[in-house]
Amino acid sequence: MRLSRYFMPILKENPKEAEIVSHRLMLRAGMIRQQSQGIYSWLPLGKRVLDKVNNIIREEQNRAGAIELSMPTLQSAELWQESGRYDAYGKEMLRIKDRQDRPMLYGPTNEEMVTDIFRSSVKSYKDLPLNLYHIQLKFRDEIRPRFGTMRSREFMMKDAYSFDMTREGAEHSYKKMFAAYLRTFDRLGLRAIPMRADTGPIGGDLSHEFIILADTGESEVYSHKDFVNFDIPSVDTNFDDVAGLDTIFKKWTSVYAATSEMHDEAAFAAIPEGDRLSARGIEVGHIFYFGTKYSEPMGAKVQGPDGKEHAVHMGSYGIGPTRLVPAIIEASHDENGIIWPASVAPFDVVVINMKAGDAACDTACEKIYAELSKAGVDVLYDDTDDRAGTKFATADLIGVPVQIIAGPRAVANGEVEVKDRKTGARETMTIDAAINKLLG
Amino acid sequence: MRLSRYFMPILKENPKEAEIVSHRLMLRAGMIRQQSQGIYSWLPLGKRVLDKVNNIIREEQNRAGAIELSMPTLQSAELWQESGRYDAYGKEMLRIKDRQDRPMLYGPTNEEMVTDIFRSSVKSYKDLPLNLYHIQLKFRDEIRPRFGTMRSREFMMKDAYSFDMTREGAEHSYKKMFAAYLRTFDRLGLRAIPMRADTGPIGGDLSHEFIILADTGESEVYSHKDFVNFDIPSVDTNFDDVAGLDTIFKKWTSVYAATSEMHDEAAFAAIPEGDRLSARGIEVGHIFYFGTKYSEPMGAKVQGPDGKEHAVHMGSYGIGPTRLVPAIIEASHDENGIIWPASVAPFDVVVINMKAGDAACDTACEKIYAELSKAGVDVLYDDTDDRAGTKFATADLIGVPVQIIAGPRAVANGEVEVKDRKTGARETMTIDAAINKLLG
Repeated sequence: MRLSRYFMPILKENPKEAEIVSHRLMLRAGMIRQQSQGIYSWLPLGKRVLDKVNNIIREEQNRAGAIELSMPTLQSAELWQESGRYDAYGKEMLRIKDRQDRPMLYGPTNEEMVTDIFRSSVKSYKDLPLNLYHIQLKFRDEIRPRFGTMRSREFMMKDAYSFDMTREGAEHSYKKMFAAYLRTFDRLGLRAIPMRADTGPIGGDLSHEFIILADTGESEVYSHKDFVNFDIPSVDTNFDDVAGLDTIFKKWTSVYAATSEMHDEAAFAAIPEGDRLSARGIEVGHIFYFGTKYSEPMGAKVQGPDGKEHAVHMGSYGIGPTRLVPAIIEASHDENGIIWPASVAPFDVVVINMKAGDAACDTACEKIYAELSKAGVDVLYDDTDDRAGTKFATADLIGVPVQIIAGPRAVANGEVEVKDRKTGARETMTIDAAINKLLG
Repeated sequence: MRLSRYFMPILKENPKEAEIVSHRLMLRAGMIRQQSQGIYSWLPLGKRVLDKVNNIIREEQNRAGAIELSMPTLQSAELWQESGRYDAYGKEMLRIKDRQDRPMLYGPTNEEMVTDIFRSSVKSYKDLPLNLYHIQLKFRDEIRPRFGTMRSREFMMKDAYSFDMTREGAEHSYKKMFAAYLRTFDRLGLRAIPMRADTGPIGGDLSHEFIILADTGESEVYSHKDFVNFDIPSVDTNFDDVAGLDTIFKKWTSVYAATSEMHDEAAFAAIPEGDRLSARGIEVGHIFYFGTKYSEPMGAKVQGPDGKEHAVHMGSYGIGPTRLVPAIIEASHDENGIIWPASVAPFDVVVINMKAGDAACDTACEKIYAELSKAGVDVLYDDTDDRAGTKFATADLIGVPVQIIAGPRAVANGEVEVKDRKTGARETMTIDAAINKLLG
């Protein structure tokens, strides 16, 4: 992508409304724009990151056997009356009347709808286990949306829903998602700690929040330090292996970790002082087992091997991609801007032409841009006539992992400078060496 | 994907509510489910097709230089009051009040919002031309939603918006999208005819609808038969070449074509009788040039080379992916079901195990499934214990282009049957030959 043809409205000033660093950097880098309170556009740079985050989530959901569909944003009130949540949900639910005066709502979550899909077509235990997910917009009419897309009203959620014949089956389904979440956050460059959590309005008796540590987090969290070094389930994890998944689950729940709602002072005090971790955290995922809470009232039943009808055991599993993007920034930035993990960087490399219009610089940059693009590398080519200082600042701000800098002096020697955004390390090398470094 | 683990709720009966073949087949193949009037879930099989359609649209938008972002579904009423459309839009606009009693709406289109994004950050003619698009849900509260996702209330739209300094520039931007649309529909296996159209509530004085011919179409259309053989712009089309694009545009607008609103009886009668085409059509895309209709009242201005401020010339360009899926089915099906063009098929091939549980059949199918999957082919493996007849009917219904059929007799000879869904042609070959045919 040539920057001269791209749309990346960089802000030079720090926006007043941003209270936390991720919000400030997302606005400054031209990733998002607030359209109304708690409702954002994802501008091209932000959309690229969001897409990469969603793709990693999707790959790990699929790996764990979940199946993607897409449910609509608007739901009929009727469905929520069946589960009893229509009145219970409160003012966060955006209630709507259509032109026929039918009561509708903008879905804050999809337990009811997916249960309706399930009951309409699944009739036998032979079709279980089943896990259906979608990545879809949700709306929660927060009284105080804030921190940019960290707590917005219209937001994106990956929500998965599992269906099993028995509680044991449902627990295995729960552990599949548990392991998938560990892999997902790891691939996003985050160390997330699963913590026993309150089930809130979703209901049920088993629930974990996945929390990453950050000073700007809204929750107080308490855990054992060992979490930091636990192994992430490998890419070869067999999600059908009940015992294997149980081992992972047991390991990751073997030491103390809890949010303030579930905090047990005595248990925490029993941890040797040097191993205690008390910090603020950001919730980036939440999983629930809630048994037959929805299947019972809504009649989601299957015929069991015994010939009788059984209400299915369900769980739900949420990740918020539009919250993960700022969470990643909270975890990875410096005074100059964002430092993207390679897996979600909007571009793999930015090529900085220090003197656009200079024939030698242009030729060198065009060559690098063409060869890398052809090889499938995502290149942002800063071909604008901005000053070099502005270009450096922009490249640092948007946090692309590698910068290739082409100035007249180096190019005269057939060389460019390659800078690592994270470490700041710079290396001068030939143009071909720079290209090969990115391809290697 | 193993069918035994997939979620593809096939209907054996023809659903009563479906009036047209695409709606009937989408319901029967388990692609969609109506959640409330005119609001649909896209079940896994449908989601796969929709994703492929969206990816083709996206590739062609990007090729033509448009830049993807994502605007939210909910908009503030204020923005529409600025343009004057809030009161004008009528009952199709879903109006909402949030918990603070602020008037909002579910976006039926995004001219106002994108103009707001533009005016907030683009200040100079040097940043033009610019074309921003997103693929996002929209809502239009149709009084009579029908034909499944062909005319639904919540639907997906790719909407692009171009910004130029001058009318000439805007016309070039218009022609870029015109050519991109020809390529897009061609890749979707459709022959779309661009027709001069009424601009309706979007406004402006230049507009084309892209129409595919189908008996179930809602519009009456009139055109010259020559369209059927016009060349599609090649993959190497240079979208910056003003004269080149104008040649494409002139060619495709050189002979008569109009919807009933714009129909000119005399001009149509002047066409030799054998060359006249009068038919019903489905609108699958609509493009507009509307000058300064939004930029003027909303103050979207840039500084020109003359140092003065100029309201930008705009166009908008829509394609409805959730309508395209049924449109493709209307154009490509037979009495047994859907016949997908390879470019949008939910799977590349279905492997039918005629006798699941038979060791030889299982081994053959597992080998084919593993080798093709490993090579990146999208395989649906029917490993269920349904009867062979049911499996054949399902495979035909869901319209996957190629079927590999493994029965005990053939497998005993190391062979399988390969069936082409479209032609019905069957060929017996060795297992390796079948694999190589798919890889070739």
